Amino acid sequence: MNNFVFQNPTKLIFGKGQIARLAKELPRDKKILVTFGGGSVKKNGVYEQVVAALEGFDYIEFWGIEPNPKVETLRKAVDVCKREGVEFLLAVGGGSTLDGTKLIAAASVVEADAWELVLNPSLYGGTLPFASIMTLPATGSEMNRGAVISNLTTGEKYSFYNTYPVFSILDPETTFSLPPFQVACGLADTFVHVMEQYLTITDCSPLMDRWAEGVVQTLVEVAPKVRANQQDYDAMATYMLSATMGLNGFVAMGVPQDWATHMIGHEITALAGITHGQTLVVVLPGVMDVMREQKGDKIVQFGQRVWGITEGTKDERIDATIRSTEEFFRSLGLATRLSELGVGEDVCAEIVRRFRERGTLLGEASNIDYRLVEQVLRQRM
Amino acid sequence: MNNFVFQNPTKLIFGKGQIARLAKELPRDKKILVTFGGGSVKKNGVYEQVVAALEGFDYIEFWGIEPNPKVETLRKAVDVCKREGVEFLLAVGGGSTLDGTKLIAAASVVEADAWELVLNPSLYGGTLPFASIMTLPATGSEMNRGAVISNLTTGEKYSFYNTYPVFSILDPETTFSLPPFQVACGLADTFVHVMEQYLTITDCSPLMDRWAEGVVQTLVEVAPKVRANQQDYDAMATYMLSATMGLNGFVAMGVPQDWATHMIGHEITALAGITHGQTLVVVLPGVMDVMREQKGDKIVQFGQRVWGITEGTKDERIDATIRSTEEFFRSLGLATRLSELGVGEDVCAEIVRRFRERGTLLGEASNIDYRLVEQVLRQRM
Repeated sequence: MNNFVFQNPTKLIFGKGQIARLAKELPRDKKILVTFGGGSVKKNGVYEQVVAALEGFDYIEFWGIEPNPKVETLRKAVDVCKREGVEFLLAVGGGSTLDGTKLIAAASVVEADAWELVLNPSLYGGTLPFASIMTLPATGSEMNRGAVISNLTTGEKYSFYNTYPVFSILDPETTFSLPPFQVACGLADTFVHVMEQYLTITDCSPLMDRWAEGVVQTLVEVAPKVRANQQDYDAMATYMLSATMGLNGFVAMGVPQDWATHMIGHEITALAGITHGQTLVVVLPGVMDVMREQKGDKIVQFGQRVWGITEGTKDERIDATIRSTEEFFRSLGLATRLSELGVGEDVCAEIVRRFRERGTLLGEASNIDYRLVEQVLRQRM
Repeated sequence: MNNFVFQNPTKLIFGKGQIARLAKELPRDKKILVTFGGGSVKKNGVYEQVVAALEGFDYIEFWGIEPNPKVETLRKAVDVCKREGVEFLLAVGGGSTLDGTKLIAAASVVEADAWELVLNPSLYGGTLPFASIMTLPATGSEMNRGAVISNLTTGEKYSFYNTYPVFSILDPETTFSLPPFQVACGLADTFVHVMEQYLTITDCSPLMDRWAEGVVQTLVEVAPKVRANQQDYDAMATYMLSATMGLNGFVAMGVPQDWATHMIGHEITALAGITHGQTLVVVLPGVMDVMREQKGDKIVQFGQRVWGITEGTKDERIDATIRSTEEFFRSLGLATRLSELGVGEDVCAEIVRRFRERGTLLGEASNIDYRLVEQVLRQRM
């Protein structure tokens, strides 16, 4: 087991009717910026609950943080924060709204431009405190430090790290009206988050292995229920809790991490505008296949414990495990091939060019270079 | 799934050589009381590492917090804190040292006597901040709010709740020289902690079920390695991490909890002086058997997922699951019957009398009264 330091101070407030608790959790003496996405919270009753809870608070609304939040939009919110003396932020919506808010919170306390802050973490100079009401289970942003920010002008998409949300409120009922495609992508995103922290080497941390497998087993069990009936409270609660636990550091203690699938997926989103979770399920089977030698023992363990694959040679078991994984993604109604998404050779060539130019080395062993990225993409056409 | 609020701010610093980090984590401007147990840390090199890290800090040592920490001893440390203006506490040792320190930290900031504070939580008036170097994996105290305190005069043993440790440093190498009986009890304690949060109803939180089962599966796998070679770093690290994760709230989100086994076990310790973990493995099979109707579905799930029991009628599967659980405890070298420990009818009668007098109702459904406690104890003679 590797040495590690773990700390996650976020207060997780989970369950039916918990948005009303907002009034107890927010600071009464601070000016608050409430950030929103495109307006779906006005249709599902969340906005009304938030406004009711905010009675008596000094707050401003900021609307329009889009999927794959764009720095161009976030700069406007930073201007509001600086001009109005905002002291606390509350993100209401999905992972994109919260991710964007994490950058707003940090960019509001420094001179540097928001995108410079994304490109150069050494410019980080603290943050306004922030919290969330998370309505789309997927990114785990509600209980981690991470955010992913896009730049429209340059067509780039990068990670940014702030501190943890002070609190996050998750009411599974807010997910009842989500578009089924978003739910499918959220299930897929959670699945792949866990795989990035799990599918490396064996015997490093048996407990973390069990917990990672536990999240995936839970997703596999609950996905058909979620797909069959998005009003099934317990199923949606299980999906929602899994999304949070999949990327809050809980399954990452003392283990190496991969993240190659995400790095490649981000480029597909940046260049072809494909939804994040959808890109991941296309890429992951390719990474598993191309890295089968290095990851083979763990793939076999995964196949055995999650898919019940116990027969055949090692290579056959790896093949069967990749097949079962891809079948699960297809059972969510997602595409698993680039061609199905209209992503062609030109996009792939540009992705390979970018990795070559940057000299990036991906994966737990930092050995996935642009040539292996190309193999992964070819395998997924 | 039940509504819940989860927050655990403890910074967990885990791994080889991490005690040296103490100098970075402790406040330089505060007077520190360092608490110890009976002196084992002087034999295993921990004391030397702590003293080296504390160079330049303003600190006092307090020695002699015993197993099942006694309020009589803790009062002396409270006097020291009040007299010397102590502002921060560092517990170095096992769960008992840290449990005792949690009470010292709280009793040092109020007028009330320490035992009054245990009996009456409404007297709680905050706490001095405290941290730990945990050297005996068992109680999970390093990452939770709980403590268990004994009173020599009255022969009582009760839980006490403070806030969370600011940080806890866990170096698996500090466990290499633990007495094998303590290790066996630590494994057992962890096992039963998880069962108290798990063995209730089915389908409440599938993810928490998987995580609880994951801790137990990990314990079952690692126990023989730990028993065979206490210098096996990875095995001891896995045991140590499991102990922390078994009782830090991570497997308890949105699920009911039992704790009947602990409540009965505490009485056996209080009256007969039997080590905590040892009392639990005696009691648990009895609770499983006596509560087999209420807990049956979960016992069957547990038997299937952890022990691989898939054949037979429901009752046969429950019997086989209880048998496998007891066999695991015996494989740790622990007794599983009261008679083996010299605990006789008189002690059992006194325990039953206490529960009858107090009118306590135990278990997740608050329906285990003194009559059922008597059945459990009879079953375990």
